[in-house]
Amino acid sequence: MPIFEPNFLETLCFKIFMSCGTPEEDAALVARELVMANLMGMDSHGVIRIMQYVNYIVEGHIVPGAAITIVRETPTTAIVDCGKNFGQVGAVKSLEVAIRKARSNYTSCVITHQCNHVGRLGAYAQMAAEQDMICLLVANGDTGGHFVAPWGGIKGRLATNPIAFAAPRKVDPLLVDISTSVLSEGKIRDLLYKKRTLPDNAVLDAEGKATVDPAVFYGPPKGAILPLGGDFGYKGFALSIMVAILGGTLAGSAIDDETVFGNGLCFIIIDPTAFIPLEDFKHLMEALYKYVKSTPLAEGFNEVLLPGERDFKKIENIKETGVFLDDAVWNQISEIANRYAVRV
Amino acid sequence: MPIFEPNFLETLCFKIFMSCGTPEEDAALVARELVMANLMGMDSHGVIRIMQYVNYIVEGHIVPGAAITIVRETPTTAIVDCGKNFGQVGAVKSLEVAIRKARSNYTSCVITHQCNHVGRLGAYAQMAAEQDMICLLVANGDTGGHFVAPWGGIKGRLATNPIAFAAPRKVDPLLVDISTSVLSEGKIRDLLYKKRTLPDNAVLDAEGKATVDPAVFYGPPKGAILPLGGDFGYKGFALSIMVAILGGTLAGSAIDDETVFGNGLCFIIIDPTAFIPLEDFKHLMEALYKYVKSTPLAEGFNEVLLPGERDFKKIENIKETGVFLDDAVWNQISEIANRYAVRV
Repeated sequence: MPIFEPNFLETLCFKIFMSCGTPEEDAALVARELVMANLMGMDSHGVIRIMQYVNYIVEGHIVPGAAITIVRETPTTAIVDCGKNFGQVGAVKSLEVAIRKARSNYTSCVITHQCNHVGRLGAYAQMAAEQDMICLLVANGDTGGHFVAPWGGIKGRLATNPIAFAAPRKVDPLLVDISTSVLSEGKIRDLLYKKRTLPDNAVLDAEGKATVDPAVFYGPPKGAILPLGGDFGYKGFALSIMVAILGGTLAGSAIDDETVFGNGLCFIIIDPTAFIPLEDFKHLMEALYKYVKSTPLAEGFNEVLLPGERDFKKIENIKETGVFLDDAVWNQISEIANRYAVRV
Repeated sequence: MPIFEPNFLETLCFKIFMSCGTPEEDAALVARELVMANLMGMDSHGVIRIMQYVNYIVEGHIVPGAAITIVRETPTTAIVDCGKNFGQVGAVKSLEVAIRKARSNYTSCVITHQCNHVGRLGAYAQMAAEQDMICLLVANGDTGGHFVAPWGGIKGRLATNPIAFAAPRKVDPLLVDISTSVLSEGKIRDLLYKKRTLPDNAVLDAEGKATVDPAVFYGPPKGAILPLGGDFGYKGFALSIMVAILGGTLAGSAIDDETVFGNGLCFIIIDPTAFIPLEDFKHLMEALYKYVKSTPLAEGFNEVLLPGERDFKKIENIKETGVFLDDAVWNQISEIANRYAVRV
């Protein structure tokens, strides 16, 4: 399993997207975000996506450099048409609009049209919190990713519909970034590559029977992922429907429209200073961390980690050890690099 | 187990609160909301709470008729001081403020100070959706209700921190109303009364070992409820922290402040017409229902029910059968009725 310097991967990724006609600033953003996902230990959202994005460019799903425009707005809301640009580029521009509106009006809600796969959803909530805003961000997914069964059903009717939430702190923000299904599809793919079994009661085969075999999930015929919550999966299902409404229905997308491609984002931004001075808010955030961490620990735990802490801790470690890539992933990336005659 | 006409219970409840000095309109609201919880099958948020609220009045935690005031506001935000009035009264007034602001500005965020127990949280999100608004509503809970262990811990540091979400439809709204823990404390109390066991992997004893005995949870020493998600309980924990921040930190409450009492609400309202004509939104909502329900069913299910559907369906049934109350609950209520010389 080859190991790479993060800077090497980022430069390679940058050059590949540049060579596909991506403007420099956008290629740098996408490269930085993909490698950051690897650094946070989320390999399923990291450089493994290079091949997928290059294919999207070839197929016309991603249009590098495409104009991103506000198609409808009020002082607190906007629909941002991302024009099939990279999801990361569309998400950052949409976030900028949302933050600008929240700075003037204290709250805002911005949704997207034609936004591609955005990668690590938490990245954009994190950016908001780093600008001292509270951000709730959800991402609806297109029919191609409808892997998640409704509570009481056995066939995929929803994407893994993640929820991100971030709030400012004196240090790295509080950062929630979770799918509303038991597992993400990326995690299943990861376990398939690693020839490992799935957790119990997470995935169904095509007949609706529980399976721990990642290959059975992919079929064909395809299985389904269960909503978050185990015996209380109606709760994960409920959250997933919330995401589908905010990220899809509100954007005018029919949930079963097969011509819709990519993620439908909904940013909700709140300026905490509407309610409390920022320093007081951050002070109370530290009190929250301290109190929550004051619990005696469960067996097998060394520490209670608040949302995001584990991911931020990994960055320095992985910068030191380097990024481990599966042979299959590296072979894909070098094949692409060769195709575009990219050298680092 | 005695059975009651809903109207009888509502009148009885109304008269009890009137006799404790509650203004007529407020007593009617609280009575209506408590009985509606019973009609929706949520007995833990129904008339079982009469005794608790009367005790709160006696202890000074609830101040019937107290003024409810906006203590800080912008065109899109407000802090509403509920002045220790009934939680239901404070929640409805806060919702009115939030909806008024969203009607003028498309989004709003309203939080509360000194809000008592609000009962069924979904009620207020539902009211917003019935006025054609999308509403996300969370409720933080005080230290007295810190039953839920953080992921990796064994002692309660969070309340069951529920999330409600509602969106308008042509008929009853889509209505999410879930705790971010595996179970609510009310459900445990219910199983204790009914001498039934808890589900597996939901509750810990005081030593951090899983228990299915409701009595062991109450101790003393007290046990803890696990966050939603089973082996993926870090997701429920993450959502619970989000609720604690929106409902508590943003309101200037230290999470461990034992002088804070009741629920800390955070209403986020979005006017869908900022993005899409209302009729189109409702049309797409029906398409969503149809598509999600089109999955083949899992064993043991007759139907896929979207969030809220089961609760709305129950209303007509329970109106017909009447409300069943445990003897213990009825004895409490009649004792209170006698104390205040209330006759129906």
